[in-house]
Amino acid sequence: MVIPTEDGSGRAPYAPLVTLGEPDLEALARGCAIFGGGGGGDPTLGYVMAREAIRRHGPVTVVDLDELPDDGLVLPVAMVGAPTVIEEKIPNGSEGGRIQAIYERHLGQPVVALAAAELGGIEGMLPVAWAAHAGLPLADCDLMGRAFPEIHMCTPTLHGLPIGPVVVTDERGNVATFTSVDAAWAERLVRPTCAAMGSCASLAIFPMTAVRARAVAVRGSVSRAVRLGRRLEAEAGDPLAVLAAELGAVRLIEGKVADVERWTTEGFARGSAVIEGFGEDAGRLLRLEFQNENLLALLDGEVVASVPDVITILDQHGAGAVVSERLRYGQRVSVVAFPCHPAWRTAAGLQLVGPRAWGYDLDYVPVERLHATHG
Amino acid sequence: MVIPTEDGSGRAPYAPLVTLGEPDLEALARGCAIFGGGGGGDPTLGYVMAREAIRRHGPVTVVDLDELPDDGLVLPVAMVGAPTVIEEKIPNGSEGGRIQAIYERHLGQPVVALAAAELGGIEGMLPVAWAAHAGLPLADCDLMGRAFPEIHMCTPTLHGLPIGPVVVTDERGNVATFTSVDAAWAERLVRPTCAAMGSCASLAIFPMTAVRARAVAVRGSVSRAVRLGRRLEAEAGDPLAVLAAELGAVRLIEGKVADVERWTTEGFARGSAVIEGFGEDAGRLLRLEFQNENLLALLDGEVVASVPDVITILDQHGAGAVVSERLRYGQRVSVVAFPCHPAWRTAAGLQLVGPRAWGYDLDYVPVERLHATHG
Repeated sequence: MVIPTEDGSGRAPYAPLVTLGEPDLEALARGCAIFGGGGGGDPTLGYVMAREAIRRHGPVTVVDLDELPDDGLVLPVAMVGAPTVIEEKIPNGSEGGRIQAIYERHLGQPVVALAAAELGGIEGMLPVAWAAHAGLPLADCDLMGRAFPEIHMCTPTLHGLPIGPVVVTDERGNVATFTSVDAAWAERLVRPTCAAMGSCASLAIFPMTAVRARAVAVRGSVSRAVRLGRRLEAEAGDPLAVLAAELGAVRLIEGKVADVERWTTEGFARGSAVIEGFGEDAGRLLRLEFQNENLLALLDGEVVASVPDVITILDQHGAGAVVSERLRYGQRVSVVAFPCHPAWRTAAGLQLVGPRAWGYDLDYVPVERLHATHG
Repeated sequence: MVIPTEDGSGRAPYAPLVTLGEPDLEALARGCAIFGGGGGGDPTLGYVMAREAIRRHGPVTVVDLDELPDDGLVLPVAMVGAPTVIEEKIPNGSEGGRIQAIYERHLGQPVVALAAAELGGIEGMLPVAWAAHAGLPLADCDLMGRAFPEIHMCTPTLHGLPIGPVVVTDERGNVATFTSVDAAWAERLVRPTCAAMGSCASLAIFPMTAVRARAVAVRGSVSRAVRLGRRLEAEAGDPLAVLAAELGAVRLIEGKVADVERWTTEGFARGSAVIEGFGEDAGRLLRLEFQNENLLALLDGEVVASVPDVITILDQHGAGAVVSERLRYGQRVSVVAFPCHPAWRTAAGLQLVGPRAWGYDLDYVPVERLHATHG
C-alpha cells in the first residue's frame, strides 16, 4: 500500500512510503531474499519475527530519509554471525530495545528511525521487527543495497564515516561496545565477540543523522524490495522475466545442484556448490563460491559474475531465492546475477569488496558486460 | 620509605605508605614476581615501563584505601593476554589515559586512584606506570593477592560485584567496552577480543568506590610486595628463608628443569614442566602444570601444592622468580609454595579457582597441611 506524500493537516507524523502490514511483509521477505545474494539468512525466520511484532504493535511505517529531521538519529541494525546458527539461536526480542537505549544514552539524543544495515534475507526483516517493538519508523534505505558477509562493507565506509560506536548484544543481555581505529578493525573485533556469544548476535553500526544518511546510504531499498516482491508474487510464472525487467538480471544457468561443500568457521558459512545444467544448459557446469553470500560464479571455468554484483539462486519449485545454507544436492535451480549499487563499482568500492578483497586474482567486470560477451 | 599517616596541616594530599621511586620499584618488581606464581609476565618489562614513567613524571604515591574519600573512584587495571606475546608487543603508553577517560565520562566522576587488578609480574608494575602518567596515587591493594589467568578470578566476584563496564584497549587505539550478565561472561567475551587485538591488551575491571574496595579488595598487597622485595634483596643469600618467614612458604624441590612443554592458545601460555631433584632431592620428580600461572605441583605423583595456593619457581642463580614462559631445560631452580589469601579458601573461593575449576579431580588441601603430612 503506497501512500503518496501529502502536505496538510491530519497526516501521520511522517508520510509513509509503504506501511508494512502482513501482506507487504511477505513481499518484503521475497524481495530481500533476492537482494541477499545467498546471504543474510533465510528470510522466513525474519518474516515470522516481523509478523509477530506487527501483530502485537501494529504496522511499521517506511519513510523516505527526506521526511526525517536533518539532525535526527538514524540507527542501522543487523544480526551478525553464521546464518546456519541464527536459524537455531533465535533472538529473544529484547536486543533491539537494549541497543537503542545504549545509543540514546551515549549520543544524548533519541533515535528517530531504524534502518537495515544490509538488505538481504533476515537482515531486511529484523529491522521491521525492531521498529514495530520500538514504535519507530523504518528508513527507506540500507548501507549495502545487497548483503555482504562483513560489517564494514557498507557505503559509509567509502565516505570515511566512523562505523562506531558499534553496539553488539546477545539474547542473554551481554553487551559489547566497540570504537575502532577504522571500520575493518571493527569487523575484526566484532567477529570473535559474535563467535563467543554463540556465533550469532545483534548489533547496530554507523549511527548517523538523517542528513548524513541521505548522502551516504543506499536509498529506496526497502520500497524497492517490496515492489520487487509484489511483482514476483503477481507474475509468479516467470520470475526470471521479472528480475530482468526490475533489476537487469541475467540468467547464468538452469540446472541441478550436483555438489555442495559447506562449513561454518569464524562465524561464517563458507563453501562452494556445483550446478549441472539441464535443458538448454545441458552439459554446462556452474561453480559458485560463497562466504554467507555468493561471491563468484564460474561457468565452464569462465567468470560469469563476481562480487560486488549480486548472484542469486532461485528454487525452480518455489520460485523463491535460496540462501547458501539451504542449498542441497539434487535441488533444481536457476542462477541469476544482477548489477550491484553503483557505489561498489567505484575504485574505492572495488577495493573494499571487489574480487581481490576476497582473494580472487581477477579484475572485476560488471555482470552486464560479461553477459554481453558471453550471452 | 614508609611514612606514617599523620593528621594536621602541611601533609601531602594522601599520606603515602610507600613512595615508589626507582629503588623501591626494584623491590616491588622482585616481590611481584614471587606473588605472580609463574604468571603475570616477566616483571622486567613492567619495571622498565614503570621506571621510564617515574623518570618522566616523578615517583608514585602508594596510599591505603582508608586515605581515599569514601565515594572516590578506584580503578583496578591490568594487561590481559599471553605473557609470551606481551613481552614482544609492548603497550605504547596511551592505553591507561584512554581507559581512565572512558570511565570518567561513563561514570561521571574522576578516578581518584589506580590499583593493580592482580599482583604478579608485569601486572604489579603496569599500574605504577599508568599512575605516574596520570599523576594519580596507587591504592595499596589488588583483587587477587596473587595472579590468576582469567579476569573474573577476583575477590569482588566472591561478593557478587559487577565486573563491568570492562574497558579493553590496544596500542592502536581500538576500544571495546563490555557489560556482561556475570563476571565469567566478561572473561569469555574479553579473551577473544584480546586475541583479535593480537593476544595482548590493556584493561580495567571492577571500577568501584574506595569504601567498596575496602570491603572486597586484598588490602596491603603493594606495600607487602615492596617489603618482601626489600628483604629478598637484603638477605639475597637465603631467599627460601625469607619466603618462609614472610609468606609461610614451603620448599617443594630443588632441581634441574628436565622437560618443558609450552604452547600459546586462546591467549594463554599453557604447558607443563618436569623438575628433576638434586642434592637432598636427588631421585625425586616434580611435575608442574600451568596456564600462565602455576596451577598444580605433583612430587613423585603426589599433590604437594595446588591452586589457589601460590606455586613459585626461583632461579638458583639470580634468586629471582621465574615466570612460566622463561622456564628452560637445564635451568637450576627451587620451587616453593605458600598460602593464598584466605578469601580463596572459602567455599565460594574454591568454587571459582580451586583445583576442580581447572579440571583437576581433586580436593583442595592447604599447602601448609600438605606440608605437615609430607614434610
